[in-house]
Amino acid sequence: MDLSAPEFEAALQAAIDGKTKPPGSLGEIERLAAQIARLQRTLSPRMDTLTHYVIAADHGLATSGVSAYPQAVTRQMVANFLTGGAASNVFARSVGANLSVVDAGVAGGPIDQPGLIDRRIGDGTRNSLDEPAMTAAELDRAISAGRDLAKGVDTDALSLGEMGIGNTSAAALLGAKLTGQPVAEFVGRGTGLDDVGLAAKNEILTRAAGRTPDRLDATRAMAEYGGYEIAMMTGAMIGAAERRRLVLVDGFIATAAAGAALGMAPEIRDALIFCHRSAERGHCRLCAALGVQPLLDLGLSLGEGTGALLAWPLVRSAAAMLNEMASFESAGVSQKE
Amino acid sequence: MDLSAPEFEAALQAAIDGKTKPPGSLGEIERLAAQIARLQRTLSPRMDTLTHYVIAADHGLATSGVSAYPQAVTRQMVANFLTGGAASNVFARSVGANLSVVDAGVAGGPIDQPGLIDRRIGDGTRNSLDEPAMTAAELDRAISAGRDLAKGVDTDALSLGEMGIGNTSAAALLGAKLTGQPVAEFVGRGTGLDDVGLAAKNEILTRAAGRTPDRLDATRAMAEYGGYEIAMMTGAMIGAAERRRLVLVDGFIATAAAGAALGMAPEIRDALIFCHRSAERGHCRLCAALGVQPLLDLGLSLGEGTGALLAWPLVRSAAAMLNEMASFESAGVSQKE
Repeated sequence: MDLSAPEFEAALQAAIDGKTKPPGSLGEIERLAAQIARLQRTLSPRMDTLTHYVIAADHGLATSGVSAYPQAVTRQMVANFLTGGAASNVFARSVGANLSVVDAGVAGGPIDQPGLIDRRIGDGTRNSLDEPAMTAAELDRAISAGRDLAKGVDTDALSLGEMGIGNTSAAALLGAKLTGQPVAEFVGRGTGLDDVGLAAKNEILTRAAGRTPDRLDATRAMAEYGGYEIAMMTGAMIGAAERRRLVLVDGFIATAAAGAALGMAPEIRDALIFCHRSAERGHCRLCAALGVQPLLDLGLSLGEGTGALLAWPLVRSAAAMLNEMASFESAGVSQKE
Repeated sequence: MDLSAPEFEAALQAAIDGKTKPPGSLGEIERLAAQIARLQRTLSPRMDTLTHYVIAADHGLATSGVSAYPQAVTRQMVANFLTGGAASNVFARSVGANLSVVDAGVAGGPIDQPGLIDRRIGDGTRNSLDEPAMTAAELDRAISAGRDLAKGVDTDALSLGEMGIGNTSAAALLGAKLTGQPVAEFVGRGTGLDDVGLAAKNEILTRAAGRTPDRLDATRAMAEYGGYEIAMMTGAMIGAAERRRLVLVDGFIATAAAGAALGMAPEIRDALIFCHRSAERGHCRLCAALGVQPLLDLGLSLGEGTGALLAWPLVRSAAAMLNEMASFESAGVSQKE
């Protein structure tokens, strides 16, 4: 087939509309199928296998009291991922994804546990309340490590999850600086702050945001306020897209990483599927700013890429629709009168 | 464990809250897990296998011009289901469900094709514009056949899909008569009516609704305006719930069947999971009247149980969460400060 854009688009739409269903009646599934076909440049896309990375790191900002949980939980959860007991492990097994755990910079020194992928950039970021979270060199290393991770993936799709106490704060600050909107619009309860905790988080993030101009380019925003795991997700999205590999983007923190990735490399948009509308309130605003509508809305606010994993069966089913459904012609079914 | 209600509920909530995640952070997945555990009366529910029935029948009302497709499509699609080419076949394979096809009363005489389950009540219903769609005896037979089908199911869950040209009209009339609201509130484009077709459908359904009082009990509403496939789904929901088996309810037409089932047997509510908010506009109103919130909103309007099939991985994942996730205690993870 001629893969020049107009011919391909016409053939793709004809293939989808020729399936034994009223045109458009599979809604988002049809849109997903078209996106996958375009990305792989074929009307018979392959979408059978998924790699899931949970990337963990710590945040200097967490020591300022922005989370309901102690920073040590990041490290404890890495151990939990490695023994298969976390929500993302359970969902990965349930939907048939391969899960790997990456240390992008968990506080407390290197973790000596079998199975862990060591890509440590530092021992947690600096506290962005007072100074940039990372240096330009550290940011470069995190982005490169993410890009290399993604390029080594041999599955049809890649999904990205994160773990890092304090990272809804980093995501809120990124959301604010990428859009130029006040950080208060992106602040939520994270893993379960009460009203007093939420007010304190709001005050701390407003102070942190005040260190720099309202709007920053993606590279500067990430260095000032991001996290090693967030920057590594950004790099992984760019690397996967460069290989025309589909990326499943989870909720608030992954969307902040995607916002930065789109700032650095706008051409990757067609490789990204936004999977879940987080219960964290800043996520709606960030999705609106990016012009995206997530597939699922299940009230999740856990992270770890749980929303992306739960969306994977929909993505597989969309490709299967294109590959396996009969056409009106082949099935001898009458069309609309 | 003592299964008396308060002890069981306390143990269930403790099990869910003890998992390594902030309380409530898995949103709908936690609610699903609790529903499954309650239904099976265990904290270790089994949710591995799914049977999907596509139940097909024709509607006398379809001859009055309420659909964009000719009535013959019902029969043609039965052949498509049996050779595995329809959307529901593709999605059933994709999510690992066993699909069977049931003839509840397709017009044109018995269908002689291997694999088809013959439960024909008649050769299509009568035209509810002029008279009741079915007799009380036919309704009884359809309900009983559905109940028996469900009782023969040996999987952990049952999902129900339908095929029947004209059945969004039957569902709209059922929605109106079950709630006492005007039928116009439940009328939509079905499989793709244009504005002229929609106005005609509205006028025909308003005339049909005018034959009887605004509000009818579930049995009378089903006999007057239902369909053989809809009544059989109603019976299957009741039969599955009697065996404490989970039922995945699809979009508009399946929800109309569920509305009737809840009218006949209100105690079955806890067995039903409402899976997809149909793009058909009457569905929102019917869900609101029943007080239910579907899991997915993917803009599907195809029927065949496609929305229920796509929700199945979420249901399986919810049970896996309860069975497989580590607890804070077992994983040595710190709790909220």
